[in-house]
Amino acid sequence: MGSPPFRYITFLSDYGLTDEFVGVCHGVMLAIAPEVRIIDLTHGIQPQSVSEGALILSRSVKYFPRVIHLAIVDPGVGSDRLPIILETASGSWLVGPDNGLLMPAAAKLGGTISCRKIESPQLMLPEPSRTFHGRDVFAPAAAHLARGVPPEEFGGEVPLPRLVGLSVPSARLHAGHLHAVVLHVDRFGNLQLAISPDELAGLGLLTGSLVEVRIEGHTSTVPFGRTFAAVPEGRLVITEDSSGLLALAVNQGSAAARLGAGPGSKVIVGPVGA
Amino acid sequence: MGSPPFRYITFLSDYGLTDEFVGVCHGVMLAIAPEVRIIDLTHGIQPQSVSEGALILSRSVKYFPRVIHLAIVDPGVGSDRLPIILETASGSWLVGPDNGLLMPAAAKLGGTISCRKIESPQLMLPEPSRTFHGRDVFAPAAAHLARGVPPEEFGGEVPLPRLVGLSVPSARLHAGHLHAVVLHVDRFGNLQLAISPDELAGLGLLTGSLVEVRIEGHTSTVPFGRTFAAVPEGRLVITEDSSGLLALAVNQGSAAARLGAGPGSKVIVGPVGA
Amino acid sequence: MGSPPFRYITFLSDYGLTDEFVGVCHGVMLAIAPEVRIIDLTHGIQPQSVSEGALILSRSVKYFPRVIHLAIVDPGVGSDRLPIILETASGSWLVGPDNGLLMPAAAKLGGTISCRKIESPQLMLPEPSRTFHGRDVFAPAAAHLARGVPPEEFGGEVPLPRLVGLSVPSARLHAGHLHAVVLHVDRFGNLQLAISPDELAGLGLLTGSLVEVRIEGHTSTVPFGRTFAAVPEGRLVITEDSSGLLALAVNQGSAAARLGAGPGSKVIVGPVGA
Repeated sequence: MGSPPFRYITFLSDYGLTDEFVGVCHGVMLAIAPEVRIIDLTHGIQPQSVSEGALILSRSVKYFPRVIHLAIVDPGVGSDRLPIILETASGSWLVGPDNGLLMPAAAKLGGTISCRKIESPQLMLPEPSRTFHGRDVFAPAAAHLARGVPPEEFGGEVPLPRLVGLSVPSARLHAGHLHAVVLHVDRFGNLQLAISPDELAGLGLLTGSLVEVRIEGHTSTVPFGRTFAAVPEGRLVITEDSSGLLALAVNQGSAAARLGAGPGSKVIVGPVGA
Repeated sequence: MGSPPFRYITFLSDYGLTDEFVGVCHGVMLAIAPEVRIIDLTHGIQPQSVSEGALILSRSVKYFPRVIHLAIVDPGVGSDRLPIILETASGSWLVGPDNGLLMPAAAKLGGTISCRKIESPQLMLPEPSRTFHGRDVFAPAAAHLARGVPPEEFGGEVPLPRLVGLSVPSARLHAGHLHAVVLHVDRFGNLQLAISPDELAGLGLLTGSLVEVRIEGHTSTVPFGRTFAAVPEGRLVITEDSSGLLALAVNQGSAAARLGAGPGSKVIVGPVGA
Repeated sequence: MGSPPFRYITFLSDYGLTDEFVGVCHGVMLAIAPEVRIIDLTHGIQPQSVSEGALILSRSVKYFPRVIHLAIVDPGVGSDRLPIILETASGSWLVGPDNGLLMPAAAKLGGTISCRKIESPQLMLPEPSRTFHGRDVFAPAAAHLARGVPPEEFGGEVPLPRLVGLSVPSARLHAGHLHAVVLHVDRFGNLQLAISPDELAGLGLLTGSLVEVRIEGHTSTVPFGRTFAAVPEGRLVITEDSSGLLALAVNQGSAAARLGAGPGSKVIVGPVGA
């Protein structure tokens, strides 16, 4: 469980960029670890949406070299949820609250090897506030870890089975149809479904097939194309998105706006007319 | 009044991130001082709100090591307001317009020691525009200061009493109640009040007390809790925020939306039923 | 056509900052070129607006030292449009899709000297997706170019006349009036017109003149001032903006909101009462 210095810290939160929260956390980290470089993964997680934060973090970590991932979506700040640092099999570490946020990412990083509580006052800002642990607890911990402070100095070991879990929703097969939810809507209005192309293939629906999609009261027959451009501008299309899941999209438009759908919307997918 | 090179420049503005203004200022600074690192404090200040910019800057500076703080909220661009560089007792410098924006931060940094006008054309971009002094005047000045250009080369000294002042609103005690305003609304809809916990204690109201709050036509009885989680989800709570002031919040919700309140909203706080 | 290492990559896109797209591209670049510094120019281009991206990029490049400009606004992702790297006479390079996005910037950088397709799988991520070439094709190419991979290793040469062109709209003189469009609306609601001060001077209208402006059904008499502050707060003013074009603005307000105008709005400008 050694921790040589890290060159990069990634930073994901629900802080947004309108306030100074993110910039102040950068300042705190650079005051502790002046050489470290901070990569803002995103601060646009919906306020207090642990599940969205976990999804976005978990699908991002594979694109980074060995780093510390600082992630803060923390509706329980000030309660007794633990602040933790997690070592993963990949050599990357995760820093954040023990509310499930870090667990899907840890799984993508080869699994959790060890976990410590952040409880040493020497490794926090003096007199931590009760409402901004990002600044006072998590950012300092990430920065101290980055400059090589040994994990055991942060606090006691947390038995891995006691970590709060969180699972990403998956599809359910029922009567020849896949029942699932919308996981995420991106800036373009593309709806990411909790369905993989393999699951669709299990219904005999391959690239080039027509698919019946029911969502938010709409029933549509939608081509399963290789790209958005498989359909004319303004038409619905299903395609494999950049995370390897199915996306319901409108070529050069917004499926979210067209269908009035968003994260959590229920969707039923199957063969046409079945 | 020496100025050895600086490693970091922080950058606050009302430029937003939709346009290229912030990115272009980064380019200007890096063309002059290639080694300097720029930390975006926030660019989400309400357009032309000098008072909001001053508040956010002043409460952020203590979290940074010795740096140059570049701050631009400049409704008077193109008029005769001065562009200035300010030396503070802390060793950090401030660069921006002389419209009050920098003064509360200078006070938090131990007070202003000296001030120079930015008037040397050699330290600006050639042919400065009349509308984008961030790019043409302030960013170059911050970058030249960072690489060690002596302050006296920027321009003439400004007598400190001639600097434009700006004070952050504070609470007023009247008939056993505190009258104040909302200073800021953050991304979560928390309302920061211009009232300190000590002022509330002066009314005999401590953590655990119930407080009567009048704001935007609503009268509410609100617990003064240690954290948001002191009340059930969806309920109003008063708590000490991360700046050491009182915040009126909704646990896992938005107090701004609930109460229809925002910066400048008047608030009256006191004992219940008094 | 040599390519010594680059210290900086600028990054413009229509990805927004709500999703993790930008952060993941940073990770991809840093995994390939750990020393390079990435400057986010803006990610607020309107989704899939190649013309807006081209305008913003072209007016920004002059403020940067010799760099690689990575630009991605790519409605044709997954179709047969080419991914390209462009060498310009200035020594700066451009990386992005061959859809016109890069061409106005290349012209501002002294013109295109050579162009290569990005087609070597060794210089992309393994198994590129069909929908996120920013992450899988363009960011890796920019990073490999930054660390000194010779251009000829990316793919075959593209004859310059075959590059997809794009021209920025300009003004047309008709019956003593200039007919043009709004090019861009910035955060402050200032309307940038496709008219230069020289073109206005051609009508005999100089700083200090009154100008008649017709836009979105409004006809207004507007002073041509040196700065926004040439008119009282809340009044319309025409001024030369920081890009050297005319802006129609409201002093300390939003011309876009006042006039209901936006990118593409037609505008007719001429002498008062003519």
